[in-house]
Amino acid sequence: MKYLLLSLHFLFCVKLYEAKVVITADTTGPFVHKRPSLDTYNQQRQHVIEKQERRFLGADLMLTNDEKIVNSHIMKLKRAEMDEGFKDSFQFIPARHIFEKLDQLNSSKLFQLIRRIPKGAVLHAHDTAIGSTDLLINATYRPNLWQNGRFESNTPPTFVFSKTKPDGKGWELVSKVRNEMTAEIYDEKLRDLFGLYTKDPINTYKSINVVWDKFQQLFTTIGPIINYEPVWRQYYYDSLKEFYDDQVNYLELRGVLPEVYDLTGKIYSPEEIVQIYVEETKRFIHNYPDFIGAKFVYAPPRFGDDDVFRGFIKILKSLHEKFPKFVAGFDLVGQEDTGRALLEFVPELLKLPESIQFFFHSGETNWYGMKTDANLIDAILLGTKRIGHGFALIKHPLLLEEIKQRQICVEINPISNQVLKLVEDYRNHPAALFFADDYPVVVSSDDPSFWRATPLSHDFYMAFVGIASAQHDLRMLKQLAINSIQFSAMDKVDKARAMRKWESLWNGTMQTLASDISKGNLK
Amino acid sequence: MKYLLLSLHFLFCVKLYEAKVVITADTTGPFVHKRPSLDTYNQQRQHVIEKQERRFLGADLMLTNDEKIVNSHIMKLKRAEMDEGFKDSFQFIPARHIFEKLDQLNSSKLFQLIRRIPKGAVLHAHDTAIGSTDLLINATYRPNLWQNGRFESNTPPTFVFSKTKPDGKGWELVSKVRNEMTAEIYDEKLRDLFGLYTKDPINTYKSINVVWDKFQQLFTTIGPIINYEPVWRQYYYDSLKEFYDDQVNYLELRGVLPEVYDLTGKIYSPEEIVQIYVEETKRFIHNYPDFIGAKFVYAPPRFGDDDVFRGFIKILKSLHEKFPKFVAGFDLVGQEDTGRALLEFVPELLKLPESIQFFFHSGETNWYGMKTDANLIDAILLGTKRIGHGFALIKHPLLLEEIKQRQICVEINPISNQVLKLVEDYRNHPAALFFADDYPVVVSSDDPSFWRATPLSHDFYMAFVGIASAQHDLRMLKQLAINSIQFSAMDKVDKARAMRKWESLWNGTMQTLASDISKGNLK
Repeated sequence: MKYLLLSLHFLFCVKLYEAKVVITADTTGPFVHKRPSLDTYNQQRQHVIEKQERRFLGADLMLTNDEKIVNSHIMKLKRAEMDEGFKDSFQFIPARHIFEKLDQLNSSKLFQLIRRIPKGAVLHAHDTAIGSTDLLINATYRPNLWQNGRFESNTPPTFVFSKTKPDGKGWELVSKVRNEMTAEIYDEKLRDLFGLYTKDPINTYKSINVVWDKFQQLFTTIGPIINYEPVWRQYYYDSLKEFYDDQVNYLELRGVLPEVYDLTGKIYSPEEIVQIYVEETKRFIHNYPDFIGAKFVYAPPRFGDDDVFRGFIKILKSLHEKFPKFVAGFDLVGQEDTGRALLEFVPELLKLPESIQFFFHSGETNWYGMKTDANLIDAILLGTKRIGHGFALIKHPLLLEEIKQRQICVEINPISNQVLKLVEDYRNHPAALFFADDYPVVVSSDDPSFWRATPLSHDFYMAFVGIASAQHDLRMLKQLAINSIQFSAMDKVDKARAMRKWESLWNGTMQTLASDISKGNLK
Repeated sequence: MKYLLLSLHFLFCVKLYEAKVVITADTTGPFVHKRPSLDTYNQQRQHVIEKQERRFLGADLMLTNDEKIVNSHIMKLKRAEMDEGFKDSFQFIPARHIFEKLDQLNSSKLFQLIRRIPKGAVLHAHDTAIGSTDLLINATYRPNLWQNGRFESNTPPTFVFSKTKPDGKGWELVSKVRNEMTAEIYDEKLRDLFGLYTKDPINTYKSINVVWDKFQQLFTTIGPIINYEPVWRQYYYDSLKEFYDDQVNYLELRGVLPEVYDLTGKIYSPEEIVQIYVEETKRFIHNYPDFIGAKFVYAPPRFGDDDVFRGFIKILKSLHEKFPKFVAGFDLVGQEDTGRALLEFVPELLKLPESIQFFFHSGETNWYGMKTDANLIDAILLGTKRIGHGFALIKHPLLLEEIKQRQICVEINPISNQVLKLVEDYRNHPAALFFADDYPVVVSSDDPSFWRATPLSHDFYMAFVGIASAQHDLRMLKQLAINSIQFSAMDKVDKARAMRKWESLWNGTMQTLASDISKGNLK
């Protein structure tokens, strides 16, 4: 079968090539065919539009009556925002930096509706950047937290939990500093410190390296707070609750497994940290039975040398053995442009058992033909199950064919791509082609905490209003949710169970929304 | 043949679809194939890279020995700029606004080399924005030029040539004002007035409408200077010389045919204006015999009502009859988002004889699924010979297939797209896919005068360094030049003659450059 396919493909390409030559040699006469009548023209036009729409992500789905009611309401809201923006795109949320438009976005009726829709899973998020800033601020109210330094702009304070004052000059109890500054001012300082948000993002983050430096610094700043075992536990649990409240019912999170510690001086092993995740996930499902679950992808930094990397591989194998189901596989994190190329790790990666799956970040770059977008080739050749970002895929037609044919899912993170300076205007995001041509994609949120976004709804909004066509409707949102389960690392049985859970939520929500809309009760 | 092709295509699609379903249903087991050995992996990788490179624009071309020498020099320069930029993209010319990097660009050795390479034709440029600002400033030294208003920022002065002082308050002779202000200061004011250049483009042009307003205002400002018959004539002739000096040997220019006038009060008819172009083109070819020639595309504004539009059609028909060879066809100009949709003109356009070819601007927009990118559908259905800009094509996979199969050429204008706010960073320009997959494209310059660019070299530089892959080499530049002749509106005989002229220039230049490079004489 495969060979027949290949030979057909070959024939097809040859024929196209011949066709091209013939046409090129023949462009001397009038190029147009005989002009059709207006009636024929309109028929042809309708045909093209329909043919185009049949290729959209979600175009195969048939909407129920409830869904049709919800859809026409959603499309009314979407169309209104787009028509308004069309008059002056400076007023259009996805044409601008999210930081400049966050208030407008949060008060958008369409956004509020998207929040209510069951969105399936988040398949691309980093464990210490998934919870709202409030969760982190709350954590700083725990006793025994110390800080070194106040809030001078160049050197952010360092934090640590400790029973006694840490060694060295300058340590003060957070509770004391907060009292001095008043909680209101202090917490506002923390809020600025714990994210990338600024009122003037255009002039604050002039280059990709500037924003990435601050971004990577953030993980260091919050590390000693979040890595404190009681916080680690609660931050994860509370984050799940935030996902749940945002109508996200399953999560595959990436993590570096940092040095989690407690007041006794104990440093938790990678296995113990993952065990915490397993326990808290169980506890959460127990409390919220329609939550589907979570898995973990071990994703250490791409900066270490070969020795460091072999250390990661050792941890990976141990985790794989101890948590064959919860630990889904492996990835590498950190700015791809400045980090090591995937190619350098290939010899070690090829030695891994096939049961360890890959979920590589690749092509998270503006560069073309450099080592960073070459990561796409290696990710695919290594058999990656999904591609993190794949922003540069659009420049690789051969790889585009490959991911479509092999159904390698691309995890699109719209807001992350804007904040981290890959794209300025959502309408230029390359995922537009993926939505237009039903590529295997999911929309995800990467590090929503750092840009004051909800677990998924802000990204869904940007994908739906900014990246997708004005014609893309509820079917696209539904297909994205379906994809997020289909392309998860769950096994067949779990996937079927997850689909049933999600479908039941979806149908229930559609019924409620349709009823509210029909009664005019939807605010 | 066509039916065989279609049925093969159909079969192929069906098989792909089946394949997709099977894989989707089967993602429960390990996704990867058995991991290969490192040797096999490296072979596979090499295969993918070669297969990818065989699809590049120009990949079919075989380089001569001279070309190989030039190529390795060019690639050394290109690689150096890219490697430097890779360290910090804020320093990389195509990652920034051209206005911020114009000095650095102008002193780039690679740019200076590109200037020397015979680039074929410019197929997309607007007649009153093709010459350098110096040509306009020189024109203001002619006698009988009056101005109303000085250089207050909000209301630019109005100009007019007139034997006597024009009616109304405030008119002064330009020569008098220039004397008062000193020529140096006065001409610097004009230089600012006659273009979009500013040191701080990011904060000056915050939205597309702001920059388009200024852009369209520019045509109004320079109109009364350039529309003065002696200037009209000379501006065109001198612009041809600038194109020629930039190694551009053929031009298809679009024009609105404004009211050209002279000191006797005569208003020139469209036919008389075109006659000036014909005469000056002849004169230029007489003086520079290796210049190939020019054609004209009548392209009035897309804003008029049906009556106005029928007036344009009348002019078009008359021009077509009087200049069947020089007047190549029809287009419409002005901001697509704010102008009328092509669809509205279809009934009239379908009535035109097939011998009038279309060269429609379409998809010069960030919007998706709105009336502006729908212009792409109408342009193609109307049988457009080329597409102006086609920036939104990337969101229309069906149309992408169509332009490739029917070899409808896309005229890419990189710098115009940046200055007019479609794309911020050249590395995000959708033409990357076109270069990657050998789409029928040319690179052009639109309105180089307004951004202080050369007739074509600045755009070639941005396409080659900013949009294309680091791997794209001299073959791409050569193919772009070949395409510019192949996709021109010339007939078969003229095209063959043009190709011979261009090839002779190309080979001569390659010989000179190769010799200079070998001797180390290339600065």
